[in-house]
Amino acid sequence: MKKIKRLKGELERRGLDAYLSLRNTRYLAETTAAKAVIVPVDGEPILICSRLELERAKRESKIKDIRGFSSWKAPLQRGERVFFMELWQLIAKVLEEIGSRSVGYDGGDRNFIRKIRGLHEAGYLLSPEVVQNLRMIKSSEELNLLRRSAKIAVLGMKLAAELIEPGRTELEIAAEIEYEMRKAGSEGTPFPTIVASGNNSWLPHSTATSRKLGKEELVVVDLGAIFNGYASDMTRTFALSPSRKQLRILQVVKEAQHAALERIKDGVEARIVDAAARRFIGRAGFGKFFNHGGGHGVGLEIHEAPNLYPLSRDTLRRGMVLTVEPGVYIPGVGGARWEDTVAVKRDGYAALTR
Amino acid sequence: MKKIKRLKGELERRGLDAYLSLRNTRYLAETTAAKAVIVPVDGEPILICSRLELERAKRESKIKDIRGFSSWKAPLQRGERVFFMELWQLIAKVLEEIGSRSVGYDGGDRNFIRKIRGLHEAGYLLSPEVVQNLRMIKSSEELNLLRRSAKIAVLGMKLAAELIEPGRTELEIAAEIEYEMRKAGSEGTPFPTIVASGNNSWLPHSTATSRKLGKEELVVVDLGAIFNGYASDMTRTFALSPSRKQLRILQVVKEAQHAALERIKDGVEARIVDAAARRFIGRAGFGKFFNHGGGHGVGLEIHEAPNLYPLSRDTLRRGMVLTVEPGVYIPGVGGARWEDTVAVKRDGYAALTR
Repeated sequence: MKKIKRLKGELERRGLDAYLSLRNTRYLAETTAAKAVIVPVDGEPILICSRLELERAKRESKIKDIRGFSSWKAPLQRGERVFFMELWQLIAKVLEEIGSRSVGYDGGDRNFIRKIRGLHEAGYLLSPEVVQNLRMIKSSEELNLLRRSAKIAVLGMKLAAELIEPGRTELEIAAEIEYEMRKAGSEGTPFPTIVASGNNSWLPHSTATSRKLGKEELVVVDLGAIFNGYASDMTRTFALSPSRKQLRILQVVKEAQHAALERIKDGVEARIVDAAARRFIGRAGFGKFFNHGGGHGVGLEIHEAPNLYPLSRDTLRRGMVLTVEPGVYIPGVGGARWEDTVAVKRDGYAALTR
Repeated sequence: MKKIKRLKGELERRGLDAYLSLRNTRYLAETTAAKAVIVPVDGEPILICSRLELERAKRESKIKDIRGFSSWKAPLQRGERVFFMELWQLIAKVLEEIGSRSVGYDGGDRNFIRKIRGLHEAGYLLSPEVVQNLRMIKSSEELNLLRRSAKIAVLGMKLAAELIEPGRTELEIAAEIEYEMRKAGSEGTPFPTIVASGNNSWLPHSTATSRKLGKEELVVVDLGAIFNGYASDMTRTFALSPSRKQLRILQVVKEAQHAALERIKDGVEARIVDAAARRFIGRAGFGKFFNHGGGHGVGLEIHEAPNLYPLSRDTLRRGMVLTVEPGVYIPGVGGARWEDTVAVKRDGYAALTR
C-alpha cells in the first residue's frame, strides 16, 4: 500500500517510530470498520476494530494484521482474533509489542491518550498534519473515485435544472436530487443538499425547507455525492424571473469563479486563488457580501486541506482536489454561489464537476 | 431555555463557573450554525459562530448573544457583530469578559485548549459528562421530535417490506427507502441505510451493495430518519424462502428483543436489559454469534448515552430514548437483527418505531 509507504517515509523524516491514527483510519485502512490504525516505521501496519467489525475489516482492508477488541468477555467463534479489553488498552498493548518510543498521533481527547500513556510509556506527539499532508495529494486511484463522485453530482445538478420552477418546494427538489444520485451509486450525501430560494438564498448554509419557490428570486443549489467514501461538491444558482440586481450578482459570482480558476496550477499559493475571486467581487462593489472562504479541499471529507482563504498558508500542488466557490449574499435581494470541484494539474486545473 | 437552566444547576453543583461547549453546540443552541456555546453560571449564554452563519444563527437559536468570528479582515455589513480573530481567540475573549475562573468543557484537542488557556488563565476541566447527562433525559419537545423521526423510519420500513424480493439489488431498495423518508420530511439518514442480504447479512455494519437478493437468505434492513436533527433507528430482518436454521435465528432474535424490552422501566440498570437478551440468545445456543451491544441511546446523535452492554454503568430513567437490538450472525448461514427505538417510562417503555 503506497500510502502506508509514504507515511513511513514521513515518520522517518520526523524521527517518529510509529503513528497512531484515530482520525484517518478510513484513509489508511480503506474501511470504516477500523477504530485505530498503528503504523510502525519498520513493520506491518495493524488495524484495530470492534469485535463486530472483524469480518468486514478483513473483507475491505488491505491491512493483514487485524485485531478486534471487546470490552466484555463473551464466547468466540473459531478463528476470531479478539482481545477482551477496551480500545485504549489494545492500542497500548500493540505499541508495547512493537516497542515504540516516539509515537505520532492525530486525535483522541486528552484522557484517552493519558490512559494509553499510563500503560505504555513513550513520547506522544499530537501531529495530525502528518497524515493530513499525505491526504492532500490524491493518488490516481483516489482521483478516479473523486471523478466518479463528481459525475454523480453532475447528474443531480442536471435534474435540479429541470425541476427548479415556481410552486415546487425546496425539500421536494432536494429529495428528487438525492434519489437520483443514490440510484446512480452515491452512498449518501456529504451534507444535506441545499436548495435555498428567496430569503433563504442569502444564508450560505441553508438547507432545504418546505418553502415554495416563487418569482423574482435566486435559488442556490449546493449538492454533493459520495462514491466509495469520496465526496464531491458543486453549486449552481438559478434565477427565476430575476431582477436586474439579482442577475448582476449571479454574473459577478460566475466571473469571480472564472478569475480564481484561471490562477490554479502547481505551485500557486492558495491565498492567491482566493484573492482573485475576492478582488473581482470587491471591484464589483459586493466585497462585504462575500463572507466566507473561497474553497476547500475535498476527499474522504467534504472539508479538508488545502483551504482557500486570505490567510491560507497552503500551496497548491498537482494532485490536490479542491472546490472554488465564491458567493455573494445580499439580504433582501438574493444570494448566489458558483462552485466546482477541480483537480490541480501542472499547468492548470481539470474540472471534475462539469 | 430549560436546558440552559439545567446546565447552570449542574455547574453550580460541580463548582464550575462556566461551561464551554464545542461538541454539544447543536443541543444547547438548537442550530448547527454554532461553533461554540459558552454558558456562565450567572448570566446569559453566548453563541459563537463563523461570520457566514450569523444570520442563520439569529434565525434558528433562542440564544440572544451571538458573536461571529472571521480569521481575516473584510468589510462588514451594517449591524454584523464580527470579531476579526480565530475561534479560540474569541472563546478566550468571552471567557475573560465573564471572568471565569473554572471552566468545564466537552471537547477540542489539546492544542486548541492550550491556546485558549494561553490567553485566559483559569482552571479547565474536561467534563463531557456534564452535558451528556443532561442529554440522556429528553424533554417533551425532544420526545416529540424523536417520535416524528421514528414515524418516518416506520414509513421507510413499510416500503422495505414491499420491495424485498429476489432480483432487486440492495442498493436499489436502499435508494427507494431513503427517497420515501426524505419526501416525508427526513433531513437525511443518520447512517447509510443497511440492506444486507445473503452473505452480507452476517456483517452487522454492512451497507447496501449492488448485490441482488436471492433465495434462501436473510435480509437485514437497518434504517433511520432525521427530523429536526433528531435520529431514529429501526431494524427488521426479512426471510426469502428461508431454511429452517435461518427461521430459527430470526425467531430467537425477535424473542430476545421481547425479553429485553420487558425489563425496561425507570430505575433499571442498562446491563440488566442487555443481559435479558444475551441470556435468551445464549440459551438458544447462539451466544457466540451475538457480537455487539444490545442497544444505545438515540437523540441528536445516532449513538449516544445510555448504552446497553454487559459492563454498562448507566441506569435507565424516564425520558431516556434508546434502541434495543439483539442480533445473531452466523457465517455461512445468515444474520438477523431486530431493533426498535423506545422511550423509557415509569413502569415500562413506549415503542416509537412500531
